[in-house]
Amino acid sequence: MERKQAIVLLSGGIDSATCAALALREGFAVTALTFAYGQRHAVEVGRAREIGRALGVAAHRVIAIDLASMGGSVLTGPGAVPRDRGDPAAGPVPPTYVPARNTVFLAYALAWAEAGGASDIFIGVNHVDWSGYPDCRPEFIESMQRVAETGTRAGAEGRAPAIRAPLLAMRKAEIIRLARSLGVDLGRTLSCYDADAEGRACGRCDSCVLRRRGFAEAGAEDPTPYRP
Amino acid sequence: MERKQAIVLLSGGIDSATCAALALREGFAVTALTFAYGQRHAVEVGRAREIGRALGVAAHRVIAIDLASMGGSVLTGPGAVPRDRGDPAAGPVPPTYVPARNTVFLAYALAWAEAGGASDIFIGVNHVDWSGYPDCRPEFIESMQRVAETGTRAGAEGRAPAIRAPLLAMRKAEIIRLARSLGVDLGRTLSCYDADAEGRACGRCDSCVLRRRGFAEAGAEDPTPYRP
Repeated sequence: MERKQAIVLLSGGIDSATCAALALREGFAVTALTFAYGQRHAVEVGRAREIGRALGVAAHRVIAIDLASMGGSVLTGPGAVPRDRGDPAAGPVPPTYVPARNTVFLAYALAWAEAGGASDIFIGVNHVDWSGYPDCRPEFIESMQRVAETGTRAGAEGRAPAIRAPLLAMRKAEIIRLARSLGVDLGRTLSCYDADAEGRACGRCDSCVLRRRGFAEAGAEDPTPYRP
Repeated sequence: MERKQAIVLLSGGIDSATCAALALREGFAVTALTFAYGQRHAVEVGRAREIGRALGVAAHRVIAIDLASMGGSVLTGPGAVPRDRGDPAAGPVPPTYVPARNTVFLAYALAWAEAGGASDIFIGVNHVDWSGYPDCRPEFIESMQRVAETGTRAGAEGRAPAIRAPLLAMRKAEIIRLARSLGVDLGRTLSCYDADAEGRACGRCDSCVLRRRGFAEAGAEDPTPYRP
């Protein structure tokens, strides 16, 4: 019997690395997809590659797309990444939101899943310890599932890929514990939106705040190099 | 008052050109998006440019993406484009289907709409004189509308872009008549999946069959150069 196939969206952060490890534990042959989309923290692409290799994915595709020239985000253009915002989940959608990013990523994942015969797509979105991005909410994942059912040949034939977001309702501390139990090397992961070329984190953007809080709550040592 | 903005997916074919003309008639400032996605009929990209210019779109973006390396379609890879199939709408999804193509296109359109403040997205899908592609069905458009509502900041704020498919239920002959009434130069449009470098059509693929039948039903002369 052929091994079952999954597509995993892999960014270089803790959540997607944990998703990849979960998919591998379930016995999937994993194709990791990583996007070089014009993000200022492009250093994450190399981290994603390292993580994929360390975990033992079957294939890894880095897809270059342009989500920068349209504008609309400080993550892909000028403007400051907010720091020291307090609780990242409070307040309006922050300027680090990239318009329709997860829609674009999942659209590609659907295409790759259908072309390669993958039955499952894993995405590491979370709506507990999160920044309030609309495309990390359960209702968004549900609507993309409906797209998988209506907009693909596989869906029309009753075998739409399942879009799975296993971390959706977990706290970051729980994800960190899960990652460790699965053998994910968290020292390779990078969360910071504003990391420097050596991968040193700022420690103060939303993503760093969530990461630090998670490690503290988990009672685990954060292996991240933070710059002074 | 600022002019209202629309994104129009423009491929070089009759349907999307007609959509662009409809959006312009409604008074929208139109940004056309055309994808160079690895299609064998890449000559359509130049046609889309010509059509956009002739119609007077405000901006035109040609976005290079790779829907070829994943495989899964004779439109982006090896294998023959089917000819003389009779009714293109009969039978299973044909091998010219490109996995999740319209999902990817609409995902980009959502991103551009949100980043640029466009309120409407036009797509020229049709499920009457069509090839049976799942991502041309009304239920797919509805599910992408739900994605616009759940997966974008605009949607979270109650102003999701409207995804409009005004040709969905029209016959090709009706679309051709509409295009002519709107002043679309149909001589610039290209439908063929297998056009040669000079843009001469094969006359026998599904897309040519639908086009020829449409012109015949409309009682209009087809300006297409068909190769012998």
